[in-house]
Amino acid sequence: MAAEFKMKTKKIAVIGASGYSGEELVRLLLRHPHAELVAVTSRQNAGQTLEQVFPRFAGHPKSKTLHFTEPKVELLAKQADVVFLALPHGVAAEYAAPLLDAGCIVIDLSADFRLQSPEIYKEFYAHDHPAPELLAKSVYGLPEIYREQIKKALLIASPGCYPTSILLPVIPLLKAGLVKSTGIIADSLSGVSGAGRKAELDYLFVECNESVRPYAVPKHRHLSEIEEQLSLAAGTDLTIQFTPHLIPVNRGILTTLYLAPEKHFANAAEMEALGNKIFACYQKAYGEEPFVRLLEGKALPDTKNVNGTNVIEIAWRLDPRTGRLVVMSAEDNLVKGASGQAVQSLNILCGFPETAGLA
Amino acid sequence: MAAEFKMKTKKIAVIGASGYSGEELVRLLLRHPHAELVAVTSRQNAGQTLEQVFPRFAGHPKSKTLHFTEPKVELLAKQADVVFLALPHGVAAEYAAPLLDAGCIVIDLSADFRLQSPEIYKEFYAHDHPAPELLAKSVYGLPEIYREQIKKALLIASPGCYPTSILLPVIPLLKAGLVKSTGIIADSLSGVSGAGRKAELDYLFVECNESVRPYAVPKHRHLSEIEEQLSLAAGTDLTIQFTPHLIPVNRGILTTLYLAPEKHFANAAEMEALGNKIFACYQKAYGEEPFVRLLEGKALPDTKNVNGTNVIEIAWRLDPRTGRLVVMSAEDNLVKGASGQAVQSLNILCGFPETAGLA
Amino acid sequence: MAAEFKMKTKKIAVIGASGYSGEELVRLLLRHPHAELVAVTSRQNAGQTLEQVFPRFAGHPKSKTLHFTEPKVELLAKQADVVFLALPHGVAAEYAAPLLDAGCIVIDLSADFRLQSPEIYKEFYAHDHPAPELLAKSVYGLPEIYREQIKKALLIASPGCYPTSILLPVIPLLKAGLVKSTGIIADSLSGVSGAGRKAELDYLFVECNESVRPYAVPKHRHLSEIEEQLSLAAGTDLTIQFTPHLIPVNRGILTTLYLAPEKHFANAAEMEALGNKIFACYQKAYGEEPFVRLLEGKALPDTKNVNGTNVIEIAWRLDPRTGRLVVMSAEDNLVKGASGQAVQSLNILCGFPETAGLA
Amino acid sequence: MAAEFKMKTKKIAVIGASGYSGEELVRLLLRHPHAELVAVTSRQNAGQTLEQVFPRFAGHPKSKTLHFTEPKVELLAKQADVVFLALPHGVAAEYAAPLLDAGCIVIDLSADFRLQSPEIYKEFYAHDHPAPELLAKSVYGLPEIYREQIKKALLIASPGCYPTSILLPVIPLLKAGLVKSTGIIADSLSGVSGAGRKAELDYLFVECNESVRPYAVPKHRHLSEIEEQLSLAAGTDLTIQFTPHLIPVNRGILTTLYLAPEKHFANAAEMEALGNKIFACYQKAYGEEPFVRLLEGKALPDTKNVNGTNVIEIAWRLDPRTGRLVVMSAEDNLVKGASGQAVQSLNILCGFPETAGLA
Repeated sequence: MAAEFKMKTKKIAVIGASGYSGEELVRLLLRHPHAELVAVTSRQNAGQTLEQVFPRFAGHPKSKTLHFTEPKVELLAKQADVVFLALPHGVAAEYAAPLLDAGCIVIDLSADFRLQSPEIYKEFYAHDHPAPELLAKSVYGLPEIYREQIKKALLIASPGCYPTSILLPVIPLLKAGLVKSTGIIADSLSGVSGAGRKAELDYLFVECNESVRPYAVPKHRHLSEIEEQLSLAAGTDLTIQFTPHLIPVNRGILTTLYLAPEKHFANAAEMEALGNKIFACYQKAYGEEPFVRLLEGKALPDTKNVNGTNVIEIAWRLDPRTGRLVVMSAEDNLVKGASGQAVQSLNILCGFPETAGLA
Repeated sequence: MAAEFKMKTKKIAVIGASGYSGEELVRLLLRHPHAELVAVTSRQNAGQTLEQVFPRFAGHPKSKTLHFTEPKVELLAKQADVVFLALPHGVAAEYAAPLLDAGCIVIDLSADFRLQSPEIYKEFYAHDHPAPELLAKSVYGLPEIYREQIKKALLIASPGCYPTSILLPVIPLLKAGLVKSTGIIADSLSGVSGAGRKAELDYLFVECNESVRPYAVPKHRHLSEIEEQLSLAAGTDLTIQFTPHLIPVNRGILTTLYLAPEKHFANAAEMEALGNKIFACYQKAYGEEPFVRLLEGKALPDTKNVNGTNVIEIAWRLDPRTGRLVVMSAEDNLVKGASGQAVQSLNILCGFPETAGLA
Repeated sequence: MAAEFKMKTKKIAVIGASGYSGEELVRLLLRHPHAELVAVTSRQNAGQTLEQVFPRFAGHPKSKTLHFTEPKVELLAKQADVVFLALPHGVAAEYAAPLLDAGCIVIDLSADFRLQSPEIYKEFYAHDHPAPELLAKSVYGLPEIYREQIKKALLIASPGCYPTSILLPVIPLLKAGLVKSTGIIADSLSGVSGAGRKAELDYLFVECNESVRPYAVPKHRHLSEIEEQLSLAAGTDLTIQFTPHLIPVNRGILTTLYLAPEKHFANAAEMEALGNKIFACYQKAYGEEPFVRLLEGKALPDTKNVNGTNVIEIAWRLDPRTGRLVVMSAEDNLVKGASGQAVQSLNILCGFPETAGLA
Repeated sequence: MAAEFKMKTKKIAVIGASGYSGEELVRLLLRHPHAELVAVTSRQNAGQTLEQVFPRFAGHPKSKTLHFTEPKVELLAKQADVVFLALPHGVAAEYAAPLLDAGCIVIDLSADFRLQSPEIYKEFYAHDHPAPELLAKSVYGLPEIYREQIKKALLIASPGCYPTSILLPVIPLLKAGLVKSTGIIADSLSGVSGAGRKAELDYLFVECNESVRPYAVPKHRHLSEIEEQLSLAAGTDLTIQFTPHLIPVNRGILTTLYLAPEKHFANAAEMEALGNKIFACYQKAYGEEPFVRLLEGKALPDTKNVNGTNVIEIAWRLDPRTGRLVVMSAEDNLVKGASGQAVQSLNILCGFPETAGLA
């Protein structure tokens, strides 16, 4: 990317801004020191002001002047340097190609460009990939892992909420060869905003409150990107077990991971030695990362500590009784799991401070 | 037990009736057709009527006439045929011995008599067992497994809430040799009533609402009884991985279990064959059980379906991608996980219909 | 009604059984000692068993044998002695007439037969009344007020949830002339089930959780029946102020009423005298009522004390600073506010004990 | 205040920083462009870092370096220019006097300096005022009403959460003579954080979830400051009716106010004329205020729109049926109702932009 592109305020559009991820993007971009939100689109809200659709932004100067529009690519391409797509999978890809052609940078929050293989896309998303030619160009927008690639990207596929909560804790361990690539289990609990702003009976207050339930067992769509990324980290194809659950909170994902250490520990001394390696591995991977919080002492992750922030909390325990490594993570599914991470990618590719608008 | 004891209305006392389990016991016993609640004790509420302490029971004739008392063993022994102990571990045992000596049947909801070994008790509960001589006399009150022993018991150790949600799904599979006894993982989510009615900051509304968190990782106390019972079922000593999480609901436990089939399945036909065996195993174990609901088709457990009932829902999936068996259960932690199950034991040992007061 | 109709088990149908009120009716009728649920209808669930639609009823013998059907009047009239209508207003009236013609007793939970005037119906419900000729036949199903009329009714209009929470506290005071008929204010808080099982964005978990909001200010539809009934009690036409609010609970209505004593009290002695009259008035009205709980001492209503029960809690305070009377009530909007009260009417008109199936 | 004091970064201490208001103060001050948080005190957390007590601040540079200390006045007075007191009433006053003597500006979030009369303080708070000599010096920190006084204040009494939600909507109407000073009713709903971080049974998750309840009827302590301020606005002593309710949300107050227009309106034209006056009155009072949002059209307040912000939403309706004016407001009890408003006062008295750290 040309140097002159860097560090200047960028004009930003958000397509599909009326969903929960879109709303969160708007929230973050409105207070971003180097971003100017120039367009928000939503078919059903076209014509309304930001404030009318989202009263919580009423205090912002733009809330009365920025109007939702129909998503028209040509116009958006003229207005914006960077376009965020907060659209359903399948739909996002339709916008990405013309926007890229028109010279925009595209940061897509859908699943459309997260996988390298159109076949796996079809297996998991049940339709042909709408723009397979773009798959090779996209960068998986997990900054802690792909920071260098993001700097040069024109098309970012921002990771899913569950994948983020799993990949960040597991990738360093796999890369360091500290855990086996087989038998990985991820048990995840998600707030209801993860289901999107959809008028469906299953997500009514009365159906979710005082309810806890697994769903999409055993083959949730996010497995596709989780396994692709973990396989890359492990250097070998792997398969994991993943069980998502719906929990009556608005925001937050708590993931508990069950991993087998590569090398069995036979006693307390060996366990301590392995613990030191794991500690060092995480310190090396994330010790300087602004948005990864490695918990110490007796602390365990709690979604209330990260809600509204771009931070992921990670804690781990070696279990001398089972020989297993249990790793736990907590993130805000709409921030680090979606919009915050997308803004983090924006910061990286535009040369802004990585925490701009996110601290 | 003498035949004449059977099927007559029994006089019942509840010691420690002001906690959540105690309150639920009172609720169930008040509407029980063969039980007469004659005494409820609570040090801090002594002197108050049922209605004053629990306004929700105001409609019941006893709510104005039954007064909480101090827990005096001699008096209680004269009043009651059966005494429920809804007390903290360590305290319960102090009451059990004199009540048994005085001729009462004791149904204990604490952990004091669930383990056969005082050494393991001390390892997990951090104090010497207060009445080790009674351990051999107690029966683990899991009716679906120990119905015959319960019929003759004088001292019932009613199982813990987490253990119930794990043991019922796993024991039949272990007994049938369908799953390995190694590598079992139980990931559990519990409502806040599981922490008891305790004035602690961690359980304040504001600290629990919009929060999801693991705790007691990796060695929760309930592991002791879970492993003892699963080892008995497997015929070999085993160790499991167990991670409890606190979820912002009042009631309900959702447990997800990760199990390895004893025999690997290599293709769809073998998977179907194994599935048939699992189906048959559960049907045989629980097909006639009034309080075990084996889900069929696409249904998955949901705590809202069992809250307020003594039912445990169980569903399972074989995963062709990982070769693993995932079993999920849902129960009301205060009913099937505590007081309802204790009343179920009462029904069995008194010769009442097993569903009396619970349907 | 013929004497032989009384006290025999009645065959019951519920039309529109898949909403929250319908579900609650089914729950209550399944355990009712004198009712046999013979038919449940729901267009979208026709063909499914009770258990498939409502897993929580799985333990009941009928849950696997009773199938939802299309609502066909002729067939239902043959099957059932009494038909409950749990349908939207406007729709309910279409079923009532032919069912009455066919000899069924009809208990309608909608607003269609609550008003005496088709003009007021049209003013508040925005369409012509679908069966004005039936208005004169219907009895307003508030048992504590219209018990004698209910005994002889063929068509019961079961009151709305808000009206019940307002009418029961206010009617005795108006009848006794203790409060003025002018200036009455009712401020009500309702759980989300009051909005029905409708797939609308406003009632999504994420939109209701951590949200408190008034709605339908200042002219909610329920004002029509509240004012009609209060006017009858006062013996003069009156108008009240009513503000409903949506609160993130599943169940429960809490209403706070602001009333002006008919006679001003000038000092502590006069306040005490008035207090004694109010106490006596409520005792006379409800002292023997099984489902009205008059709170004493420092107790104030709390929806958690009445949820799941047919009880309404009432407390009141005279304020020496303002001279006003503040009355507060709590009820379960789905039980005393809807289905429980409808079953209470069933009990009365069939000659069953009034608490049958409700205690 | 000396001009040189203005607009320089101020050093700030928070005494009693471990409660909910204190935590929110810390959150706001950590991101404030002109404030440097130099000290936080808490007896029970002394010695711990910010991050240890509040993991959610982990991302901030100070979270690992700033340690909680014992509240020692001498030391704090040397460190800080401005000291916030987030302490219980009665305790706050003990710190205020020595801090003022030592030259600090004090912003008190307790009730200790909100009233002008020590007698009324004693009536409502049940103990003698601990520092009556300071009452005359304190300024009631409601910026929209007392901005000029705040600019020169040395001791700010930041208003209570309920009072803010009532005073801002009512004061302009009283001052303009548009509503009567008699018969005012305020019905308020508060989230549980309003009760503070106290380990009491009443505020446990299980006791608050699925519960709605009034409390402190009819004489809540906040009446004292509400009536004092409204009397000042009305130019005559007045008494109001106030009913607070506890609602299962973490944050937010929703207040519904019932007011009588000073001049009766007899028809639609008069109602429209009055409506225009009310609109103009609010526009004049708050049209330029950054933190008051006057709702238009059909919009009604909703706490979810203001949570986390310093905004109060206000809407109103004239009711042609009752002749009454209904005004509704929504605020975050911890921000506009406590800590945000206190920071707003800080901004005013230090000459910072009023929205600094709050937008």
